[in-house]
Amino acid sequence: MEFGRRTLLTGLGGLVLAGGMTSVAGNSLAAGQTQPGGRFEQVGGDHGWKPHKLDPKECAEVAYLGYWHKDYGCGYGAFYAIIGLMAEKYGAPYNQFPFAMLEANKGGISDWGTICGALYGGVSTFSLFWGRKEVRPMANDLFRWYETAKLPVFDPGEKALGFKGSLPQSESDSVLCHISVSKWCYVNKIEAESKQRSERCGRLTADVAAKTAEILNAKIDAGKDYKGVFPVQKSVSYCGECHQTKGNEANWAKGTMDCTPCHSGAKGTMNKFKDHP
Amino acid sequence: MEFGRRTLLTGLGGLVLAGGMTSVAGNSLAAGQTQPGGRFEQVGGDHGWKPHKLDPKECAEVAYLGYWHKDYGCGYGAFYAIIGLMAEKYGAPYNQFPFAMLEANKGGISDWGTICGALYGGVSTFSLFWGRKEVRPMANDLFRWYETAKLPVFDPGEKALGFKGSLPQSESDSVLCHISVSKWCYVNKIEAESKQRSERCGRLTADVAAKTAEILNAKIDAGKDYKGVFPVQKSVSYCGECHQTKGNEANWAKGTMDCTPCHSGAKGTMNKFKDHP
Repeated sequence: MEFGRRTLLTGLGGLVLAGGMTSVAGNSLAAGQTQPGGRFEQVGGDHGWKPHKLDPKECAEVAYLGYWHKDYGCGYGAFYAIIGLMAEKYGAPYNQFPFAMLEANKGGISDWGTICGALYGGVSTFSLFWGRKEVRPMANDLFRWYETAKLPVFDPGEKALGFKGSLPQSESDSVLCHISVSKWCYVNKIEAESKQRSERCGRLTADVAAKTAEILNAKIDAGKDYKGVFPVQKSVSYCGECHQTKGNEANWAKGTMDCTPCHSGAKGTMNKFKDHP
Repeated sequence: MEFGRRTLLTGLGGLVLAGGMTSVAGNSLAAGQTQPGGRFEQVGGDHGWKPHKLDPKECAEVAYLGYWHKDYGCGYGAFYAIIGLMAEKYGAPYNQFPFAMLEANKGGISDWGTICGALYGGVSTFSLFWGRKEVRPMANDLFRWYETAKLPVFDPGEKALGFKGSLPQSESDSVLCHISVSKWCYVNKIEAESKQRSERCGRLTADVAAKTAEILNAKIDAGKDYKGVFPVQKSVSYCGECHQTKGNEANWAKGTMDCTPCHSGAKGTMNKFKDHP
């Protein structure tokens, strides 16, 4: 049993016996109880789970298996590799999480191609342990690494579940599934609906889980001093001088994604609805 | 206490008494137990929570309050409005969820401007109840509505927590926070870092929660027959004829987002790094 930082009983669920109901001290909610602490109260306190260091290599392997488990995909694989491994090693509260909800992340959230589902699976684990001010540099490190890293790196060898053999690597320049996947497919002439592409995303899920664990471990070591290591993108600094500066009449841009994929007049963003082959 | 569809004990947490540990039948995991069912096992079974109908108007009001609660933002507001309300009305397993993790969604996931955090908050609730085949038409309805609706609609009147008074509405054409927010700010000449913009996102969170509840209610009524009502976007059908068709050499595109904001040669996607004022 794990003791969180803020409460004795962290995230334990309802206490029920066949013949009746028993309660213990703390703010654990019994089954049948609703929200006795009031609206917006949370069992164990907000961000109240205790973080544990994990082996990035083990996380990568579990994430890859999670990706293929019932085809739940990237978000499930990356999230289970962190919180599921804590559940396997430490029990509650980690083993109380309804993991399959992360299936929503597949294909950039229900196949819409928005954020890479593995990235959401990784970054959302941080928010179980820390509030946004502490999470932001961790998220920035994970996301900026993803934009610039040549992925996938992980190779399951003979244990590959979708496609055996090496796969090409490419930089996505973007945390969006649509750009990350489509660019990899376009550059390498591999169909988006192919086993190679599925395998690529499975391996990338392993890479994201390993990076998430590295950042988690570094944060546990550094505590509030964790500052992050990846610098802000040049494009975001440049564009942000006007578009993200308070008091500027052009201060209308929200986001930290690299601006270049969509705002540099690249071939892909020209008019594809006119004179397009 | 709620009984799920697949197990007698759904999502109940650990069973612990001051003097020892007690277990009951079912696959509930006691504190201290890890994952006795094996890797990837889940308390209550995958997608094992029981869905309940909610009043969309009540959800909107709670979502708006959740958005402002400790500044947790859009994802927290939308998610709590669904699962938190079920917790308030029905107790476990809903009240076991570590709600504050949804703070990760703020600003399109840790201020990166990817998916609208409210949309993720809404769609991820569906995956607590159903697998992806049933979730997909629900997600499509929520996301396509968001692309085309003039938002925000919700108006808290005198109870406004960020900015009182009416706000302009606009269509986002996109489920991405960056486009949704930036377009609203650009069109209406309102700074991204302003109280009006925060208020806009708070009201939009209310709108997304209400729509999520409408879809949830319709799904509960229709069961497996739920087909969805929003047609696929013309751009996705048109581009998908080549870019999302198996066997086509140009089958490299992943996603269901409207293609036009980034692939129609719009002014915003021209080269902003050269001869830009």
